[in-house]
Amino acid sequence: MENLSLFKDIVKQYKAVFFDAYGVLKNHKGLLPGIQNMFDYLIENGIDYYILTNDASRSPDQLAEGYLAKGVTAVTPDRIISSGMLAREYLQYKVKEGTVTYLGTPNSAHYLELTGLKTLSVQEVDLENLDNIQAMVFLDDEGFSWQRDINKVINILRKKNMAVIVANTDVSYPSSKTEISIAIGGLANMVEDIIGKTFIRFGKPDAQMFMFAYEQVLAKGSIRKDEILMVGDTLKTDIIGGNKFGLDTVLVLTGNILPNQADLKIASTGIIPTYICESVMI
Amino acid sequence: MENLSLFKDIVKQYKAVFFDAYGVLKNHKGLLPGIQNMFDYLIENGIDYYILTNDASRSPDQLAEGYLAKGVTAVTPDRIISSGMLAREYLQYKVKEGTVTYLGTPNSAHYLELTGLKTLSVQEVDLENLDNIQAMVFLDDEGFSWQRDINKVINILRKKNMAVIVANTDVSYPSSKTEISIAIGGLANMVEDIIGKTFIRFGKPDAQMFMFAYEQVLAKGSIRKDEILMVGDTLKTDIIGGNKFGLDTVLVLTGNILPNQADLKIASTGIIPTYICESVMI
Amino acid sequence: MENLSLFKDIVKQYKAVFFDAYGVLKNHKGLLPGIQNMFDYLIENGIDYYILTNDASRSPDQLAEGYLAKGVTAVTPDRIISSGMLAREYLQYKVKEGTVTYLGTPNSAHYLELTGLKTLSVQEVDLENLDNIQAMVFLDDEGFSWQRDINKVINILRKKNMAVIVANTDVSYPSSKTEISIAIGGLANMVEDIIGKTFIRFGKPDAQMFMFAYEQVLAKGSIRKDEILMVGDTLKTDIIGGNKFGLDTVLVLTGNILPNQADLKIASTGIIPTYICESVMI
Amino acid sequence: MENLSLFKDIVKQYKAVFFDAYGVLKNHKGLLPGIQNMFDYLIENGIDYYILTNDASRSPDQLAEGYLAKGVTAVTPDRIISSGMLAREYLQYKVKEGTVTYLGTPNSAHYLELTGLKTLSVQEVDLENLDNIQAMVFLDDEGFSWQRDINKVINILRKKNMAVIVANTDVSYPSSKTEISIAIGGLANMVEDIIGKTFIRFGKPDAQMFMFAYEQVLAKGSIRKDEILMVGDTLKTDIIGGNKFGLDTVLVLTGNILPNQADLKIASTGIIPTYICESVMI
Repeated sequence: MENLSLFKDIVKQYKAVFFDAYGVLKNHKGLLPGIQNMFDYLIENGIDYYILTNDASRSPDQLAEGYLAKGVTAVTPDRIISSGMLAREYLQYKVKEGTVTYLGTPNSAHYLELTGLKTLSVQEVDLENLDNIQAMVFLDDEGFSWQRDINKVINILRKKNMAVIVANTDVSYPSSKTEISIAIGGLANMVEDIIGKTFIRFGKPDAQMFMFAYEQVLAKGSIRKDEILMVGDTLKTDIIGGNKFGLDTVLVLTGNILPNQADLKIASTGIIPTYICESVMI
Repeated sequence: MENLSLFKDIVKQYKAVFFDAYGVLKNHKGLLPGIQNMFDYLIENGIDYYILTNDASRSPDQLAEGYLAKGVTAVTPDRIISSGMLAREYLQYKVKEGTVTYLGTPNSAHYLELTGLKTLSVQEVDLENLDNIQAMVFLDDEGFSWQRDINKVINILRKKNMAVIVANTDVSYPSSKTEISIAIGGLANMVEDIIGKTFIRFGKPDAQMFMFAYEQVLAKGSIRKDEILMVGDTLKTDIIGGNKFGLDTVLVLTGNILPNQADLKIASTGIIPTYICESVMI
Repeated sequence: MENLSLFKDIVKQYKAVFFDAYGVLKNHKGLLPGIQNMFDYLIENGIDYYILTNDASRSPDQLAEGYLAKGVTAVTPDRIISSGMLAREYLQYKVKEGTVTYLGTPNSAHYLELTGLKTLSVQEVDLENLDNIQAMVFLDDEGFSWQRDINKVINILRKKNMAVIVANTDVSYPSSKTEISIAIGGLANMVEDIIGKTFIRFGKPDAQMFMFAYEQVLAKGSIRKDEILMVGDTLKTDIIGGNKFGLDTVLVLTGNILPNQADLKIASTGIIPTYICESVMI
Repeated sequence: MENLSLFKDIVKQYKAVFFDAYGVLKNHKGLLPGIQNMFDYLIENGIDYYILTNDASRSPDQLAEGYLAKGVTAVTPDRIISSGMLAREYLQYKVKEGTVTYLGTPNSAHYLELTGLKTLSVQEVDLENLDNIQAMVFLDDEGFSWQRDINKVINILRKKNMAVIVANTDVSYPSSKTEISIAIGGLANMVEDIIGKTFIRFGKPDAQMFMFAYEQVLAKGSIRKDEILMVGDTLKTDIIGGNKFGLDTVLVLTGNILPNQADLKIASTGIIPTYICESVMI
């Protein structure tokens, strides 16, 4: 392993930090050790921070509750920027009235209703009467029958042309120490391939996610992009997205990439983090 | 529409015909009109024929029963060549012993057991003990819980490297006059994308399917490839597959492609049938 | 054609307009008729405007000269936002020193040198000594031998891992009334496929391009995204990019899409512009 | 490395062997040591053999001359099966008259002329008069100006719909010990992506190549597929193609895959050879 740096030495050179959540702050067992301590260090040193997560299954309030329940008080709802928030913002700008249908849990849809739009699960849609359906959102891989409702999605989109939003670009996520599950982004890719239409995706590595976070930091005072550090465990989302947006990047080895794989993965993908750290522990 | 030919005029110039089934001989309502009559014409004129179908959900015996039940006696089991037969042949050659796990109905798996191999549905597999599992087969989109079992497939393949066979290359099929369903080939594409492995696929447009049929015809006496006609409703499977194998091809307009779309689809795909006919009716 | 609107009626409802250049303001013959007149109308009505172009072959100064030479005074360099500008900004943030190698004309590279970085054409690179080469940029399809230098690019990237920037996402461009040429984005896709690495792309439909333009407008006073209109001739770049960023969109029929194709293309891609106008003529 | 076998022990269990050429029998320096000796062993033991190569740049006669010049008498023209032969056979069956245009050297085209068809390099084609052009063939990456002629290919195919044949599926090939070049298959992929048409490809891993070889062996007497061994250095062409066709397969480590990469590549692709051997030396 070349260039292994201490996170403490790196982070103090920056004015703000963007963190990926899964694989950086938590894993399948819960929070990683030392997280509150790390945030305390940032706060003491006047370093701003945000969590950027490809998650549309829960609202920032609900996501923050999960941290609080484990004793981490630093991750308040206003610190969390999720791909679901971008999807909601899109709907607010672009869909003025009518009903949005969705794949996901009622909980994930509840969050969309803050836009004032009516939501209807794909299961409840009447294929013979789509007049009022204005958009479709892929929110979560849970909360519906895959066979029944993914087939129904295909037929809804064949009958009526509408905007389709994918609120999470991830194709899979870890469901236990050794197992993964297909994420809603993976199901959306399959549907897009089969019907040949182009969906609108939100989530890292897309610039919109980083822009949203950058605007929050900027609102508190002048900051350059190269004064911000992006910390993630995934080259194809966190690191290339941060790089492209002009941020410096840290790859941590507590998630997707095991310590002995880092050099090989960087060489084979050509995605080069500014630094590599074992973890964010300080 | 340029070049619309009468099937009767075309077919009599050939010594053998290969037919796609769905969209050519039958549709969601059942058999198309005039099918037995058309086969009678072939038989009277000494023209040999085979049905080539991307279907691994049933055995040739079961497929033939469907024709017989509608009064078509010409489609006997020995006339049917299915992608499932190729998958079975592969397993016979390449997997000498052990258990093959599958996604599909028990009925589709029963057909595989003729190889002497033991079959086990993905649901029944013990993720902690994969020692005896030698291969995985994607057979049918029915007969299992998509969410539970597709996720399980991914984790089986992450734990043990094995041959994976996709017994039907189609990504979707018509389930009613106006609706389609995702086929097992579409589900297999999603899994392949997510885990990054290369599966082995059987079905049109692959040469192996045409070769299998060609060998049947050849066994009865000398015949050149350009004395065989392939009839299908789908450019990307039947027509390009037939073209590439060296056969002359007929696109019929009773299935996938409506009469007013044919010229545009041929121009945009660059897949050019030798002839276009409204139907196989004679 | 459903919903054909007059551009004059549409544009007056907005505070700012973003224009694609090729197919909207100009084509292979030069500027479209009525362009200066249209800009005069915007200026009279206090509507702000920017040109967003996937072009890294020339600087905004050079691009503006082209308009001025044809008598259009409204398109000044500060009104032009090109994918090349984003690529240059990326290099400024992320490559602090050393040499950047490029595919393109010396003219396209000259523009990069404003970053203070040294540039070296791929032809001039010494494959045996890559120590000082920090990044590679795909700038233009002209200015080099495709066979010699694209093969050299592949071997440079196999020998040294570095950031690779594609300064134009387009895969082709019209080179005359009836012909097209492969754009540098098309060449970059081929290289990326062959070596399996992930490049960094700039240009529509990417959010970063729209963000850059939005920041210019915002700097002059408060404006909401839905007060901005994106005008383009291409669904897969201008329209979906504008839609996703939260802008209203106009598809014009003076470029990529002929009037009789618009409904079909919108239905088949699922990319839905807010309005369709014959042209931007007022 | 698991399961390293001696080629001598393996090969004597089979009645016939199919060899890939590059990486198995030769490399950038010329023939590998011990090749004639190995063929002598096959001949002594009555084991039949063929060379299966994705090469359309030269005829079997010319390819055989290369072996003979190095003292290997065992590789006669009738032992060589190339993707170019399949392309030529396709043209014979499917294009009865007229002119075939090509990308490649005059030498590669000369071979096509054995079909009786007229050939014309893309450079010589008159874009304004395509009436007589019946098909296009991608033969070789040498012999033409990439920029001028690949752009011309795109415009020919936009003006006239015709069959397009890619006579070599490889995307790259080794041009020296450390460098690779883009092969004609890589250029064809780029053109196909840009114009959205479907080309007809010949070469491993396609079944047609193996079928062609199998028919040669079969013509000499009864043989089962599992009595044939396929030997190659590339998982994605030689090994998966051989596996799918029902052959046993040997991965050798004298080409594409270095000894220390074999286990990792097999695990990550899911393409599993029956055996792994250091080389074909006996």
